[in-house]
Amino acid sequence: MPDTPRLDHARLASCARDIADAGRELGARGWTPATSSNFSMRYDSQHAVVTISGRDKGRLGVDDVMVVDLAGKPVGTASKPSAETALHVQMYRRDPQIGAVLHTHSHNQTVASRLYAQAGVVRFAGYELQKAITGYTTHESELDLPVFPNTQEMGELVDRVDAWLDAGKPLHGYLIDGHGIYTWGRTMAEAKRHLEAFEFLLACELDLRRLTA
Amino acid sequence: MPDTPRLDHARLASCARDIADAGRELGARGWTPATSSNFSMRYDSQHAVVTISGRDKGRLGVDDVMVVDLAGKPVGTASKPSAETALHVQMYRRDPQIGAVLHTHSHNQTVASRLYAQAGVVRFAGYELQKAITGYTTHESELDLPVFPNTQEMGELVDRVDAWLDAGKPLHGYLIDGHGIYTWGRTMAEAKRHLEAFEFLLACELDLRRLTA
Amino acid sequence: MPDTPRLDHARLASCARDIADAGRELGARGWTPATSSNFSMRYDSQHAVVTISGRDKGRLGVDDVMVVDLAGKPVGTASKPSAETALHVQMYRRDPQIGAVLHTHSHNQTVASRLYAQAGVVRFAGYELQKAITGYTTHESELDLPVFPNTQEMGELVDRVDAWLDAGKPLHGYLIDGHGIYTWGRTMAEAKRHLEAFEFLLACELDLRRLTA
Amino acid sequence: MPDTPRLDHARLASCARDIADAGRELGARGWTPATSSNFSMRYDSQHAVVTISGRDKGRLGVDDVMVVDLAGKPVGTASKPSAETALHVQMYRRDPQIGAVLHTHSHNQTVASRLYAQAGVVRFAGYELQKAITGYTTHESELDLPVFPNTQEMGELVDRVDAWLDAGKPLHGYLIDGHGIYTWGRTMAEAKRHLEAFEFLLACELDLRRLTA
Repeated sequence: MPDTPRLDHARLASCARDIADAGRELGARGWTPATSSNFSMRYDSQHAVVTISGRDKGRLGVDDVMVVDLAGKPVGTASKPSAETALHVQMYRRDPQIGAVLHTHSHNQTVASRLYAQAGVVRFAGYELQKAITGYTTHESELDLPVFPNTQEMGELVDRVDAWLDAGKPLHGYLIDGHGIYTWGRTMAEAKRHLEAFEFLLACELDLRRLTA
Repeated sequence: MPDTPRLDHARLASCARDIADAGRELGARGWTPATSSNFSMRYDSQHAVVTISGRDKGRLGVDDVMVVDLAGKPVGTASKPSAETALHVQMYRRDPQIGAVLHTHSHNQTVASRLYAQAGVVRFAGYELQKAITGYTTHESELDLPVFPNTQEMGELVDRVDAWLDAGKPLHGYLIDGHGIYTWGRTMAEAKRHLEAFEFLLACELDLRRLTA
Repeated sequence: MPDTPRLDHARLASCARDIADAGRELGARGWTPATSSNFSMRYDSQHAVVTISGRDKGRLGVDDVMVVDLAGKPVGTASKPSAETALHVQMYRRDPQIGAVLHTHSHNQTVASRLYAQAGVVRFAGYELQKAITGYTTHESELDLPVFPNTQEMGELVDRVDAWLDAGKPLHGYLIDGHGIYTWGRTMAEAKRHLEAFEFLLACELDLRRLTA
Repeated sequence: MPDTPRLDHARLASCARDIADAGRELGARGWTPATSSNFSMRYDSQHAVVTISGRDKGRLGVDDVMVVDLAGKPVGTASKPSAETALHVQMYRRDPQIGAVLHTHSHNQTVASRLYAQAGVVRFAGYELQKAITGYTTHESELDLPVFPNTQEMGELVDRVDAWLDAGKPLHGYLIDGHGIYTWGRTMAEAKRHLEAFEFLLACELDLRRLTA
């Protein structure tokens, strides 16, 4: 494999630590049940570090991540990346500013994804916390979180995300029906802030439905 | 007792540690209230290690487990096993691949058991997390979790489980009305993954009922 | 004060430790909000150890308890006992077997107390966890938890508890409207088991109401 | 800046510690999602210590706070205070007894703020925990928590709070629609007790609505 990069082990270890820390935090909140969920960070302009398939996401160590190129191909390892790696590398390909992608699977994310699957979008308005999404400066904005149909064919999901972005619509995260959320940021800290904000907003929307039905 | 096995203390200690670890984790989530719940692991082809009756399941130590044969009889001890030992050893008898059985008593398990008692089954469909149950590879599958009537006669429950299995229906866990869940796996890790998945799926189903009633 | 007992400091320290441990556990669950709640243990046939008024119940130390006689009068201290001390010593007076009394103030206890205030009682039936209350051996039993009206006059509450007991009705705990629960046991471990069981049963009843309204 | 006070570093460090401790506690409860929320303490009759904008409120250190005068102007620093500093210093200006102000952003606070926005107030009655608010001695009192419309103009919020106080109505905290709560106390301990009490009361009110709708 002549194009295998010589890996910078310090950079790799630093990404692994950030991913493991995120996994521990998000796992402790119950957002990664039953070995679901996966996380990644950009390694360089052509590669990303992703979690290896099937590991307990609340107990990740430095050996639970691997390097892939932006087509999702493993680099310098025989390990199998998480099934949804294609959805991670898509974001790194589409936006050179994106530095971290988080996919979790919380109760509220799953319930909301089913409830809003037919509408195809959850629209948030009037929440101060919309301002936690980079670029939003007032609660008077509208923030759309699309819900895509679930499929075991990752290519179909990649196409739906591409279609949304190609239509020029803003995208800060998306739900997959019955499945969970994807969100991202320029740094791991920003990705975590976006994830916390979407989780909070979804929980509020669901509860307002319970209270005003 | 000429057929008492000479106990392998390292094996017993290893099972005790795994059971205590599981108890601590599950207790911390509130799934073992008021000394309820019990856990076991296969010891060998003819024996299992089970929790002793009445102990705090969130604080188990190596002295809180005992060996029983697959008829549920204590081996090499005067301790009393958990009341529901018959339901544990039944699974080890029926399937030589099963290595661990978990019985917990969470809020969602108990509420769902009462709500679906009359239907006799909770059917999950459309959840990505169904794939956490070994053998399920798509959210497009259907996953049935039966609900059996509660009784203080363990024999009646054993008969219901046998009848379900004898009918050739897949079984990965079951609820008992007003009581809790039983689930299992080839290893303790798989049993815990199954338990987490069922708990998550039950919580989602209940919440969708609250939201769409 | 010729009848002041010579205090056994080892006994007092042991009670203080048990009370502080219980407070930390129950506080961590969120059952003692805003310095509410109070705990006690029997010291001897004529005295009890109770928490001092106004302390943070999740951070109790050995200096946060004091001795009172069974009329509720402080012994050997100028500290002020918790306002509801009269309800604690009443139980020690009425039943020489009672060794610990817990009063907490969880969300579920408060909500249930308001919802069932008019009925005057929450009746549990069909739950396996009823067996966690000493003396109950089957889910086919009925377990009554009375709800008394709230008042700032402790004497009125003492009279209501006396009236219930004098009528020969079983009593393992009670709610006060808008306020919280009292429960007890022969030991601190049994009192905590009873408290966990009532909390669990109340949470299930409330949720079944939400799901079947 | 001739009127810059010579800072008492021990006093500043002590405030920073108390604020960081509060942040850690409140963050652990999930009340400060996505770097929202801000906290302050009175420094002296003319100054306050407030959190710096954008920090993770669950991980505050001594370098995450700064001094402002009671007009909200930074003193001895180039840092930017939290956006809502104007609402903190308003309370210190209006009441010399106030020693700490807490602004959090919990799920229940946000949901209640939206649900009661039109009514403009949440009225609590019949809860024992109303007594956790300084000055309230019985559950038979009524406790009003106003809900003000959200705006990105802090001056408008300051005016609404002033108008409420100028009308002579008691004020122990307020909600902002879609946003969160402000509450305070003479000490940080009292401010935390008030916050815990309001959170508890809001959670009960919301749940009673779910249960009796």
